[in-house]
Amino acid sequence: MDWTPPAVAPRADAALTARLRQRIDHLTKPLGALGQLEALMLQAGLLQGRVDPRLDAPQVLVFAADHGLAARGVSAYPSDVTAQMVENFLAGGAAISVLARLHGLPLTVVDAGVRGTRAARPGLIVRPVAPGTADTSLGPAMSRAQCVQALELGREVVRSVPGNALVLGEMGIGNTSAAALLTAHFTGAPLAACVGRGTGLDDAGLARKLEVLAQVVQRHAGATTPLEALAAFGGFEIAALAGAMLQAAHERRLIVVDGFIVTAALLVAHALQPAVLDACMFAHCSDEAGHALALAHLGARPLLALDLRLGEGSGAALAWPLVVGAVALLDGMASFDSAGISGRDASAATA
Amino acid sequence: MDWTPPAVAPRADAALTARLRQRIDHLTKPLGALGQLEALMLQAGLLQGRVDPRLDAPQVLVFAADHGLAARGVSAYPSDVTAQMVENFLAGGAAISVLARLHGLPLTVVDAGVRGTRAARPGLIVRPVAPGTADTSLGPAMSRAQCVQALELGREVVRSVPGNALVLGEMGIGNTSAAALLTAHFTGAPLAACVGRGTGLDDAGLARKLEVLAQVVQRHAGATTPLEALAAFGGFEIAALAGAMLQAAHERRLIVVDGFIVTAALLVAHALQPAVLDACMFAHCSDEAGHALALAHLGARPLLALDLRLGEGSGAALAWPLVVGAVALLDGMASFDSAGISGRDASAATA
Repeated sequence: MDWTPPAVAPRADAALTARLRQRIDHLTKPLGALGQLEALMLQAGLLQGRVDPRLDAPQVLVFAADHGLAARGVSAYPSDVTAQMVENFLAGGAAISVLARLHGLPLTVVDAGVRGTRAARPGLIVRPVAPGTADTSLGPAMSRAQCVQALELGREVVRSVPGNALVLGEMGIGNTSAAALLTAHFTGAPLAACVGRGTGLDDAGLARKLEVLAQVVQRHAGATTPLEALAAFGGFEIAALAGAMLQAAHERRLIVVDGFIVTAALLVAHALQPAVLDACMFAHCSDEAGHALALAHLGARPLLALDLRLGEGSGAALAWPLVVGAVALLDGMASFDSAGISGRDASAATA
Repeated sequence: MDWTPPAVAPRADAALTARLRQRIDHLTKPLGALGQLEALMLQAGLLQGRVDPRLDAPQVLVFAADHGLAARGVSAYPSDVTAQMVENFLAGGAAISVLARLHGLPLTVVDAGVRGTRAARPGLIVRPVAPGTADTSLGPAMSRAQCVQALELGREVVRSVPGNALVLGEMGIGNTSAAALLTAHFTGAPLAACVGRGTGLDDAGLARKLEVLAQVVQRHAGATTPLEALAAFGGFEIAALAGAMLQAAHERRLIVVDGFIVTAALLVAHALQPAVLDACMFAHCSDEAGHALALAHLGARPLLALDLRLGEGSGAALAWPLVVGAVALLDGMASFDSAGISGRDASAATA
């Protein structure tokens, strides 16, 4: 399949790293005492190429699409819920709507392939590739052309919004199945370890889901390249998310990665351009089985572990204040010199 | 020692629990999908005795005091830093200052026993019990009268501020030693498991700290009641925090517990009034050795685990948006009925 991802240059910069480290170490706190927030400070600075990173017009983007596989009973909810939740996002009643409002983040929903018809309106971009993917137990979820279209849609959406930071989410009944298939493919973990209860399957439903997905894996044994795997297993929202992340990393925008599905999209993006990770902060480790495996494959350390499994970008929006906090601390804290604080006293420490 | 803590009634209320659970389960999300945030929703509702909890005029209180034991070389920083950091809090350059400002939380610093003299001013309550505790390797850290005075100071400070939620922090060079001693006393864990590097001791400093604290434990083997242990090992800021938490729980204010030192104060409060825990949300598990042991003793599950070890209330302030988020989600999310979302489809789940 022919598609050239945007260039993503690695962020290695020894001189800037040293300047950032020195700035962080001179803030009025013990060395390293802000733990993982110091890693965020360093990452934001390197990404933006400056010792004083700034968060400018951050946006929430939620990509939504339906999944043909949902007809096989892999979800506790019917496909209708995807379209209903798109309306709920726009009406302000979904978790991501509440959190975006709370944190002052503009929310844009992207219909990348939701069943039914709807009109574009403020906060909603309507660019469906198709009314849901095909049933991947019968063939590829999408054609090559559809896959490229979805990837390019993600890139276009990112180019269309301002700012230097993105909180990414998704909606699509059946998409934990797509994420499980992609996670098994890219991490090499056994499928069973990647399949979870999604929105709340019972034991019988979980067994059914695993059985269906095992058949899908067998059928698509020939899908070996990242784009072949994406077309075979993915959803339009997942492909669009992969494109969005590649574009964002190309532009050096900061990406806050949500849960299992967004991370599955990142597995694709990472296989195409490993340096995309330099732009990614990982919001949380969800309660969905395969997420920890995907995070481990990426070498990611998530900020939260609250047993969330809602998607929509809700985990990323919950972690967002930690990103804001890290940048604010780097910007706003005094240094030992400026505050007239006595330094570490080696004689006391070792007396 | 005679001191009667304020009454703290347990919050058990089966009918309200059921009403809250029903409300949470009807929000537009899969059952349980907001994980630990759902526990926060339930706790806030039970604490306030209503299905629609509200956060009203939340406050940050930072209690500061010096420690006589600091003269024995148990900290990487000299005692002067306590007073210098009090000025840094007020000047806006400390981590807690930046985070309080970021989250719109008024910050009040309480001098409960910092060396040197300073004038009360907006944001600073000056009520020192003494210019630092005594060297607990030579005798009790404080007299019985001083201990009661500090406990009552904490109660008074809480009564003097508005609102129904408190973010609690501390400052005091040497106070990880006091916290380690209290944690060993109340949890029964070996002292060595409770002693950490504090603000950054090297290996030799850590060995020295452990040696000094082991002597202190031997000297105060006769301190058995909670208040005797507090007087023997504690700091004025720690005693004031214990009093503040008891008063807050008495008034049904929500308490966001910071790191190792605030948790050590809670060990005292909990020993006096176990129901104080009903008011407590635990911000994080710090990188300081004894904190996880103290949290386990209290059966607490912290919200964050970011290797923070700064104190000041910085961990609690970083976790604060999660508390705000939980309450906002309970208040702002639509229900399945109100949003017209299809419910869980049992036939699909088990087809």
